[in-house]
Amino acid sequence: KNIVILGGDGIGPEVTAWGNDVLKNIAEIFGHTFSFQNELIGHAAIEATGEPLPDKTLDACKQADAILLGAVGHPMYDNDPSKQVRPEQGLLKIRKSLGLYTNIRPIKIFDELAHASSIKSEILKGSDILFFRELTGGIYFGEPRERQENGEVAIDTMRYSKMEVRRIAEKAFEAAMTRRKIVHSVDKANVLESSRLWRETVNEVAKNYPEVELVHMFIDNASMQLIKDPKQFDVVVTGNMFGDILTDEASQIAGSLGMLASASVGDSVGIFEPIHGSAPDIAGQNIANPLATILSTALLLDISFGMQEESKAVIDAVDAVLKEGYRTTDIAEQQTPKDKILSTDEMG
Amino acid sequence: KNIVILGGDGIGPEVTAWGNDVLKNIAEIFGHTFSFQNELIGHAAIEATGEPLPDKTLDACKQADAILLGAVGHPMYDNDPSKQVRPEQGLLKIRKSLGLYTNIRPIKIFDELAHASSIKSEILKGSDILFFRELTGGIYFGEPRERQENGEVAIDTMRYSKMEVRRIAEKAFEAAMTRRKIVHSVDKANVLESSRLWRETVNEVAKNYPEVELVHMFIDNASMQLIKDPKQFDVVVTGNMFGDILTDEASQIAGSLGMLASASVGDSVGIFEPIHGSAPDIAGQNIANPLATILSTALLLDISFGMQEESKAVIDAVDAVLKEGYRTTDIAEQQTPKDKILSTDEMG
Ligand SMILES: CC(C)[C@H](C(=O)O)[C@@H](O)C(=O)O
Ligand SMILES: CC(C)[C@H](C(=O)O)[C@@H](O)C(=O)O
Repeated sequence: KNIVILGGDGIGPEVTAWGNDVLKNIAEIFGHTFSFQNELIGHAAIEATGEPLPDKTLDACKQADAILLGAVGHPMYDNDPSKQVRPEQGLLKIRKSLGLYTNIRPIKIFDELAHASSIKSEILKGSDILFFRELTGGIYFGEPRERQENGEVAIDTMRYSKMEVRRIAEKAFEAAMTRRKIVHSVDKANVLESSRLWRETVNEVAKNYPEVELVHMFIDNASMQLIKDPKQFDVVVTGNMFGDILTDEASQIAGSLGMLASASVGDSVGIFEPIHGSAPDIAGQNIANPLATILSTALLLDISFGMQEESKAVIDAVDAVLKEGYRTTDIAEQQTPKDKILSTDEMG
Repeated sequence: KNIVILGGDGIGPEVTAWGNDVLKNIAEIFGHTFSFQNELIGHAAIEATGEPLPDKTLDACKQADAILLGAVGHPMYDNDPSKQVRPEQGLLKIRKSLGLYTNIRPIKIFDELAHASSIKSEILKGSDILFFRELTGGIYFGEPRERQENGEVAIDTMRYSKMEVRRIAEKAFEAAMTRRKIVHSVDKANVLESSRLWRETVNEVAKNYPEVELVHMFIDNASMQLIKDPKQFDVVVTGNMFGDILTDEASQIAGSLGMLASASVGDSVGIFEPIHGSAPDIAGQNIANPLATILSTALLLDISFGMQEESKAVIDAVDAVLKEGYRTTDIAEQQTPKDKILSTDEMG
């Protein structure tokens, strides 16, 4: 199996190094042959080549069996909105080029980490949500997206086709059949035409899954309900932008962004990545939490390689480490000093 | 002073009736003359006239000194995305017709109600956020918004002009000068062209307020930070859709949506309304919480009539009632039965 590692920016390379190491160990223990290839993306790629996604990177990804990604983004662009070449373009382009229309984000509370959340433990206990975020459509890709009237006006286009909605809705319903059989579809159909198409299409797909309960929810209400009563959700399916917002918000249900893995899949090869960003403020300090990346390798082994046992070995290792009280700073209990605080390398 | 009351749908008429009563009492106690006129909007207006915002309503509003609104929306439209005439069109049209480009939503934790929130009390204590949501632009109004390719595709347009961003940013900075002097501007400038224009323009406005600290935050991060650490926020300024999402989410900081008032202002007359929706599930049961509407009358008295003392009298009355342990069901402490549970009418 050929795995491409895209460290990217900020803490990305620090955490993917440990993801790489975990995969190496899994190969050794279970007798597989994994080969690894590091490529550039994001700001790191711009610095080296002028491009946020060099052809060499894209070609390597197209030939890979799976891709492990760190994070993309750098504050120098955020503070200068006029920059034409931007790290995130690399991320959006690779998602689009590889046809990764389904972003899967499992949000599960690790009981040991409930204290790290700002939400009350009794509200969190038992939460287990599987998000399906559409990843190659919506306002992230719709055209036109441009300046008009001498730069005094800017527009973006939110666009969805029935085909795009149907294929991700089907994935969500399929997943719900293996779980609690509830799908929440989130949109803003009381305002947006694209959301009305979304809702119509999800209703059509739902007809093929009579056992699954479908609940439509407006995005404003969903962003409140997620915090108010997370246990009501099983599978959530939504568009690109609403999914971006809800899944980051949902990190508070899991205790910390530092624990959350994601899989982006579609027609062929998949990308596996932590949902935290490049965190430039803590980059290079050996304090970033590598567990989200390590849990992303578990998703990679399961989804791309069909290696359930290997995947479980990784998850069990993370569980065991947490049970023994080992923590990186982001998930450490502040009040009681009983946690054993580890660096990135030690945790890895 | 001439006040138009738009009860609207669901629990709207129940709660505005009490807002009306409070305003009547204020007039009597403080020796003012207020006249009241009830008009139709939303589903109620569609039923009666076929239009979500009849001309009669709009004309009355244009001549009013202030408008008190209940809520707009009915589930029969939500479940049928193909309906062409919809209650929310009335709300969007009145906002646009009256030029109400600034939606102000104060989010303050009532200490007595901290228990009603799903967020830990120690995280909430001391939170005090003033939201400025742009209300007549963005993806709510951009054109085109239509079906294409035989209905297989739908698009909406997110559009902002520098003028639109500048005028709301100025309001936000002015407000920050009277508070803790921090403005968080929320956008998605790493993806959207309209957000890059937003960020540029806010940066320009900020130059006139050197004492105010400006923090740019991406919407995904903001939706997380709001729950993780609400106290970091003072004034938040953002676009129409992001503001819709964040302010509903922020209701969990105040303990309940049932307590939150809002003001929509712009060039002339303002609309004052609770931020909760029409809540059709509890309509007609005399259990809705009228306090958000009553607090909206306090905003009305202050902002539209410059009656600070009268406004304070309303707020003090709400405080006193809460201190004495009176609650509607939505804000009642579930564990301890010491709260005195009231109906809508009793609370009013
Ligand atoms: C970096 C950014 C473009 C990206 C997104 O918005 O999709 C990120 O927030 C994510 O969720 O993967
Ligand atoms: C009812 C709906 C159109 C409205 C909006 O999205 O603006 C509501 O959610 C609000 O926030 O006032």
